[in-house]
Amino acid sequence: MGKNILIAHGGGPTAVINSSLRGAVEAARDAAAGGRIYAARFGAEGILAGDLIDLTDVPAETIARLDDTPASAIGSCRRKLTDADYPTVLRTLDKFDIGAFFYNGGNDSMDTCHKVDELAKTEGLDVRVMGIPKTMDNDLVLTDHCPGFGSAARFAAISAAELALDASGLPIHVVVAEYMGRNAGWVTAASAMAARLTRCEVLTYLPELKVDEDKMLSDIERAWARGRGLLVTVSEGLRGTDGKPLADTGIVDGFGHVIPGGTAQHISDIIMQKLNIKSRAEKPGLLGRAAMAYASSVDRAEAYAAGRYAVNAALRGESGYMVSIQAERTPEYASSMELVPLAEVANAEKTFPPEWIVDGCRVADGFFDYALPLMGGDMPQYAFLR
Amino acid sequence: MGKNILIAHGGGPTAVINSSLRGAVEAARDAAAGGRIYAARFGAEGILAGDLIDLTDVPAETIARLDDTPASAIGSCRRKLTDADYPTVLRTLDKFDIGAFFYNGGNDSMDTCHKVDELAKTEGLDVRVMGIPKTMDNDLVLTDHCPGFGSAARFAAISAAELALDASGLPIHVVVAEYMGRNAGWVTAASAMAARLTRCEVLTYLPELKVDEDKMLSDIERAWARGRGLLVTVSEGLRGTDGKPLADTGIVDGFGHVIPGGTAQHISDIIMQKLNIKSRAEKPGLLGRAAMAYASSVDRAEAYAAGRYAVNAALRGESGYMVSIQAERTPEYASSMELVPLAEVANAEKTFPPEWIVDGCRVADGFFDYALPLMGGDMPQYAFLR
Repeated sequence: MGKNILIAHGGGPTAVINSSLRGAVEAARDAAAGGRIYAARFGAEGILAGDLIDLTDVPAETIARLDDTPASAIGSCRRKLTDADYPTVLRTLDKFDIGAFFYNGGNDSMDTCHKVDELAKTEGLDVRVMGIPKTMDNDLVLTDHCPGFGSAARFAAISAAELALDASGLPIHVVVAEYMGRNAGWVTAASAMAARLTRCEVLTYLPELKVDEDKMLSDIERAWARGRGLLVTVSEGLRGTDGKPLADTGIVDGFGHVIPGGTAQHISDIIMQKLNIKSRAEKPGLLGRAAMAYASSVDRAEAYAAGRYAVNAALRGESGYMVSIQAERTPEYASSMELVPLAEVANAEKTFPPEWIVDGCRVADGFFDYALPLMGGDMPQYAFLR
Repeated sequence: MGKNILIAHGGGPTAVINSSLRGAVEAARDAAAGGRIYAARFGAEGILAGDLIDLTDVPAETIARLDDTPASAIGSCRRKLTDADYPTVLRTLDKFDIGAFFYNGGNDSMDTCHKVDELAKTEGLDVRVMGIPKTMDNDLVLTDHCPGFGSAARFAAISAAELALDASGLPIHVVVAEYMGRNAGWVTAASAMAARLTRCEVLTYLPELKVDEDKMLSDIERAWARGRGLLVTVSEGLRGTDGKPLADTGIVDGFGHVIPGGTAQHISDIIMQKLNIKSRAEKPGLLGRAAMAYASSVDRAEAYAAGRYAVNAALRGESGYMVSIQAERTPEYASSMELVPLAEVANAEKTFPPEWIVDGCRVADGFFDYALPLMGGDMPQYAFLR
């Protein structure tokens, strides 16, 4: 096996992807196997260009600071590797004498991992390949949850509670807040926590269910009439009963792509136009994966553990696996790492259970039993005087 | 003088308005003057309706929790009192035997305070009237700064840094982020801190300067071309050279009011349409005043102190003043409370110094010398590996 290791990030970052990087780097240092520790600059782009960052001698305090650094500290990209790219990938692995390759990403990255592993075996390249899971969307299969989700869920839960308190303390408008998730409602579901943390009315719409605008407006009118303020949380990927995105600006960019509109802004607009109720839209957007003050301590510890586990597994000779999180919730939350075959993870998708969507606009207790420990458990407590 | 005290909130909340409430309540309890401690439910609305909350016997631990509670815990409103309302206000003060009235708010509230004070004197009502400053916009005069601003500035600075790290770690789009402030750029200026905390390109546009869209687009094109990612931060109230809001949806609500569009979304749209660069818009919106994880420790302590100071001043017989913050920045930051006449504060506005706007799209060091201590000083430090 080659002497050095290579770590790469794929796709969108999470609040804790750098903690997995820290875990991997520290495990490699602890093992003292003697090789170099490389990272690909901007993910697949860096691998293809042979543009690597040498982390071997980066001071320990800088590596420790990764826990407080959002986004990808080594850079990531959205480039999906094609069959034509793989020979170049193998060439980089060979050139830098890579003995273990770690790809930290979601579905696409696990597919890439799997292909690299297979191809390396076919070509007789002695490299071990491991996937480290990462996605705020929580849509990877064969793992209880994904590193990154707990922090995104904590952000959604607490920020929605804060917006709900604002909306009920100065009840002059319906507040509509948009959370990330084009196809998966896992993160937006966490925003429904606002109903438990405050005394405000909260309605939540997930992308798994097509939205009937008339029903939504009548839900909103009824909830607003209760006079306790109203927060409506929506996923950016909401679609109408016709299957089309609710919000469509009608704008086409220079590449001919239709520009999707703001879902929250659209709903806020129709609340004003059709219900004559004042409304305002908020879109924390990328802060949902970057706001470190809302990162979950449990999520961060697991992301770190996943990075360490991947390196240690590769060092003992494993290849072709993704690190998976096994979790128990009773009597109290505990998790451990395991390995699952990349072949079984690649390109599969874990969807939000439809039975956790209640009346189209609320989230069932079962979801919170599942998700609350991942958010770190410790939710804020507020003073209610009104 | 009447035996009881009354506290009311006016206008939009801040992250620390409840800390001023805590300070006022605790000062009143410490003084043990024996009267009841009332709060107006939803500000002026509660005063007019005689709808008060009795806080006298609320447990100390609930009052302490006000520090962690965003928005107004007693409720606020946007109703501006008219001349016709003042007799009703005096009736409520008389009915509840109010000896000291505290109004926690911005310009409008200080104007109300001033009128209540004058009218009470004219009518021979023995009530002391004190203003407690509050506005994230930082536009009150005769005070170094306003409680609420430091926390909003800290939110803008750190959230922009987090967005900048995301934008530079996965540089697939220009990120445009919108911060609160229709007329005053104080808060949005703090977002320019992202340029100091990261290595990303950051452009910042404040409402004090009319925006030439062509110049803005050429700034953006040039900054994007440097290849380090790009964050553009804008105030929600940006206007074009014609003096009209940059973003105008063309939608009119049921009351005939034109619905203002999202400024960030508009700029993001023109970046895509005219520069053919991918872009996305974020609008943390009300989180700018509600996200407690970003509250400034200095701001919270001063808000608390302002509440205490107002009550103690009224107890020793003062009336007709607003609490003002005096600050020194060398050799290190220190602040103290003083009283300034309401008559001199009401309806005046502190604007952002034009000399702190550089090239129309950057913020001068002088602003950060002023604002950094108010944000709590302790800014995050990140790991840079790329």
